[in-house]
Amino acid sequence: MYNLAGMKKFTIIIHCNDQQGIIAASTSFILENQGNITYVDQHVDHEHGVFFMRLECDFESSSFSSSDFSKLFEKSVAKTFNMNWEVFDTESIPKMALFVSKYDHCLYDILGRFKSGELKVEIPFIASNHKDLEKIAERFEIPFYHVPISDETRKEAELQHLKLLKAHDIDFVVLARYMQIIPQGLIDAYPSKIINIHHSFLPAFVGAKPYHSAFERGVKIIGATSHYVTTELDAGPIIEQDVTRVSHTHSIKDLISKGRDLEKIVLSTAIKHHIQRKVMVYNNKTVIFS
Amino acid sequence: MYNLAGMKKFTIIIHCNDQQGIIAASTSFILENQGNITYVDQHVDHEHGVFFMRLECDFESSSFSSSDFSKLFEKSVAKTFNMNWEVFDTESIPKMALFVSKYDHCLYDILGRFKSGELKVEIPFIASNHKDLEKIAERFEIPFYHVPISDETRKEAELQHLKLLKAHDIDFVVLARYMQIIPQGLIDAYPSKIINIHHSFLPAFVGAKPYHSAFERGVKIIGATSHYVTTELDAGPIIEQDVTRVSHTHSIKDLISKGRDLEKIVLSTAIKHHIQRKVMVYNNKTVIFS
Amino acid sequence: MYNLAGMKKFTIIIHCNDQQGIIAASTSFILENQGNITYVDQHVDHEHGVFFMRLECDFESSSFSSSDFSKLFEKSVAKTFNMNWEVFDTESIPKMALFVSKYDHCLYDILGRFKSGELKVEIPFIASNHKDLEKIAERFEIPFYHVPISDETRKEAELQHLKLLKAHDIDFVVLARYMQIIPQGLIDAYPSKIINIHHSFLPAFVGAKPYHSAFERGVKIIGATSHYVTTELDAGPIIEQDVTRVSHTHSIKDLISKGRDLEKIVLSTAIKHHIQRKVMVYNNKTVIFS
Amino acid sequence: MYNLAGMKKFTIIIHCNDQQGIIAASTSFILENQGNITYVDQHVDHEHGVFFMRLECDFESSSFSSSDFSKLFEKSVAKTFNMNWEVFDTESIPKMALFVSKYDHCLYDILGRFKSGELKVEIPFIASNHKDLEKIAERFEIPFYHVPISDETRKEAELQHLKLLKAHDIDFVVLARYMQIIPQGLIDAYPSKIINIHHSFLPAFVGAKPYHSAFERGVKIIGATSHYVTTELDAGPIIEQDVTRVSHTHSIKDLISKGRDLEKIVLSTAIKHHIQRKVMVYNNKTVIFS
Repeated sequence: MYNLAGMKKFTIIIHCNDQQGIIAASTSFILENQGNITYVDQHVDHEHGVFFMRLECDFESSSFSSSDFSKLFEKSVAKTFNMNWEVFDTESIPKMALFVSKYDHCLYDILGRFKSGELKVEIPFIASNHKDLEKIAERFEIPFYHVPISDETRKEAELQHLKLLKAHDIDFVVLARYMQIIPQGLIDAYPSKIINIHHSFLPAFVGAKPYHSAFERGVKIIGATSHYVTTELDAGPIIEQDVTRVSHTHSIKDLISKGRDLEKIVLSTAIKHHIQRKVMVYNNKTVIFS
Repeated sequence: MYNLAGMKKFTIIIHCNDQQGIIAASTSFILENQGNITYVDQHVDHEHGVFFMRLECDFESSSFSSSDFSKLFEKSVAKTFNMNWEVFDTESIPKMALFVSKYDHCLYDILGRFKSGELKVEIPFIASNHKDLEKIAERFEIPFYHVPISDETRKEAELQHLKLLKAHDIDFVVLARYMQIIPQGLIDAYPSKIINIHHSFLPAFVGAKPYHSAFERGVKIIGATSHYVTTELDAGPIIEQDVTRVSHTHSIKDLISKGRDLEKIVLSTAIKHHIQRKVMVYNNKTVIFS
Repeated sequence: MYNLAGMKKFTIIIHCNDQQGIIAASTSFILENQGNITYVDQHVDHEHGVFFMRLECDFESSSFSSSDFSKLFEKSVAKTFNMNWEVFDTESIPKMALFVSKYDHCLYDILGRFKSGELKVEIPFIASNHKDLEKIAERFEIPFYHVPISDETRKEAELQHLKLLKAHDIDFVVLARYMQIIPQGLIDAYPSKIINIHHSFLPAFVGAKPYHSAFERGVKIIGATSHYVTTELDAGPIIEQDVTRVSHTHSIKDLISKGRDLEKIVLSTAIKHHIQRKVMVYNNKTVIFS
Repeated sequence: MYNLAGMKKFTIIIHCNDQQGIIAASTSFILENQGNITYVDQHVDHEHGVFFMRLECDFESSSFSSSDFSKLFEKSVAKTFNMNWEVFDTESIPKMALFVSKYDHCLYDILGRFKSGELKVEIPFIASNHKDLEKIAERFEIPFYHVPISDETRKEAELQHLKLLKAHDIDFVVLARYMQIIPQGLIDAYPSKIINIHHSFLPAFVGAKPYHSAFERGVKIIGATSHYVTTELDAGPIIEQDVTRVSHTHSIKDLISKGRDLEKIVLSTAIKHHIQRKVMVYNNKTVIFS
């Protein structure tokens, strides 16, 4: 009964200082504008006194745009509570760029999900510092850009990346086992919009070769972590983690092999949360709405 | 900053037909009565068009009782939307009766959690159709009633149970591996208030000896299920389930042993959900608010 | 130090009545023939008095073939204990046929793993009763056969399948969400060699539309099960199962979506066990060696 | 059919340099001495060239003691391969001391399992640096020793602990949330025989207040780790780990509460592995036989 043609669906995410009346004001605003709330979830960080809310709502008038909503809500509600907030056209499809190196498992997984219709995105291009995976891009009919990176070309590569991202109007970037450090310029241009997959249960085993370190330490469980890229290596806000049991019978090679499934699932789950605007970043942590 | 002395905390759970304006009306009501909403979660069953909501709120006036709230909310909001709803004094401690037979692991687990302060309940008594666990009740200083059950005494036992429950003003009953069928009279007196633990992943392996059936079928995972007792055996609304891996190396005895941990955790999780008024029952299913 | 060129590696799987001396006789045989045991695992079904063993061993002489081993072992050891046993050239690559219908997620997953080198198989062909996934087969350069099935063509299709399997010298068949009942003729030709994925936690929700049934029952966990196909529907020996948590917030569509990841992982895990000859079938159950 | 009265059951654990013929020699020895092997599992650390094996066997003669076995096996087999090995009378009951401080959840859990017959140990005493849990010891009728620890009494407490452990002929010690550093003297007296539970997924969050650190980092999964105590804090060989999901909705208090169940299960699992002589320690890691 929701989803009729001509209906406008918005997703609104809000954070601000915790105050009385925010929920009532926001939901009343939607009601008064002939909207119907189909989802509300909120969270209060009591330690820091911060309020978070995510709303989904429908408006019957097809002429009521997200920018109309934006102006009205800002004036009537957001200003009063000094909100940081965003509104999204729920049904708009974001544009995602993929950065890869030589490992293909996450790439195959993402492209399979994309072709199956599971990931509601556009993928305007795949970029890589190696040519190894070009064939896969061709197989799935996605443009592939080879952007080699060496100490000499590092700055040039960054500019080329920025140019590609602009040219294709990219909303967010996914590092599908991309084995290069992201330069500050890219992080600044895409804050909380570059999603990485790290092959350990962070904060254990930061940096290179985490499966080797896990093997050395003799852990009984290994993990994978997807996070937004920030300046400090593997220290950005965690979006999703998962783990699997291992034992003394597993060699490093086995850990790597078992870890591939974790990496694929954790990364694709993080991508889905991001696409559905379920993630809010605050104090280097995430709120992931249900 | 919440939780000050003299402050009243209420938990409100609501379900009704899905309609526009429910959230706005409910939250505005609280605001207008000088309340502060500290938690809201809602759910819509789109298939059946049913709306569910759980609210927590604080009122500063210590003289504002839950029955004051009840009258005002019924008149101002609930009536309009034809709500089924309840309000609880958040800090009131419910009274829980324990029914057991011969297995002691769930009983030890619940009593340990109770003594640790993890389960915010009173336990006025333990009833059993056997005397085996009387010593444990003594150890934890809880009154123990032996209510033997045979074909001849079944009806008498039911009456004795009902009398005990009334006399101790019991809010809900937990069957901690109680090995008797609950008669209709008890179910009717405590609808959605008798919590059972079944030692399988329902609906697989209904009835007696589920670990034997699981072994026979060669499953690779076993489970436990906590549900409210209804007339049909092991078919009531599921509150919580959990599972653990098994393999060909596990004998039936091993399954029983591994299952004990599942039963303990699943049952105590269900009890906690119930105590915190997080469970709503609808169409023989549960909504478990976060 | 193992794995040198010219070295022969064998995998041996054995089952027989449990008797004294089986392990000693088998391991001594290998030693006496200048072999080195690199892996041994055994299991005893005490209820039925059956012994199971899996051995891996190396022989330095490149001229010592698996059929040489076979003759010697049969005469010296297997006969004495009346063993059912098989020897495999550990490094031989089995041939796997894929049967699909319209769902593509398991197919993408298997082909991605295959191309990544994770699944050590040959895939001589993909067969389907629909043409929908032909494009994917092309994308991965694997021959695709369209074998339509209707009430009239059912018998003809069976013969065509058998012919294809023979012609390509297929070792085992994987039903990657193939939506047709496998006829008795195929089951008989490939006993314990047709691997299915069922989208529920068997034995719960046998048959069609298990996600709908799971939703209706209000379970808090859903699962997937991979098993060998036998005559009785969804009742064959279970190779692997896995589960994931769900809640009242998940619609049937959400269950289907979450279930896809389970199906992929469970099926590919079962395929890996089969490829590595880690599975023994007995009494409609499996022994899965580590 | 095993387990007859008068039958002797031994558990043998072995490690040595990986060499040809170990399995054959060991199993043949048992056979030649009229023994029956009921369990064998082995593991090879290929990186370091180390072989591990665990055997269970029955001997019909009730007069064949573990020290008879020991002498014969040492001479006939162990010496040849330069084995480090031990034999245990499978049915002997080890003596376990419990060290606690103020937290009671692990203590309740262990004592409940002990009284249920799940943990096959004797518990000669509980020692604590505080008096808080004395009442629980009384409840379960176990002697309680209060050994206060301060900077002045530290050395004296160590001597008192050593004296208690000797006097009660203790086989191993379990630190059930004991909040004191174990001194070197105790570690040396009980190498790989002091089991600790740390309330994080090691190596993440070593040291004090791991739940606070986990909250601060915004992890989506928390864990618990049981390990043998070594000189370096929280860095000993890991016996068991487990994890559970958390989210932004969980406060530090919630993490502590959810963590309690992990701690209980992980610690009791580690204790069971140890009791059943399934753990071998090597290179600061463990081999845990199935």
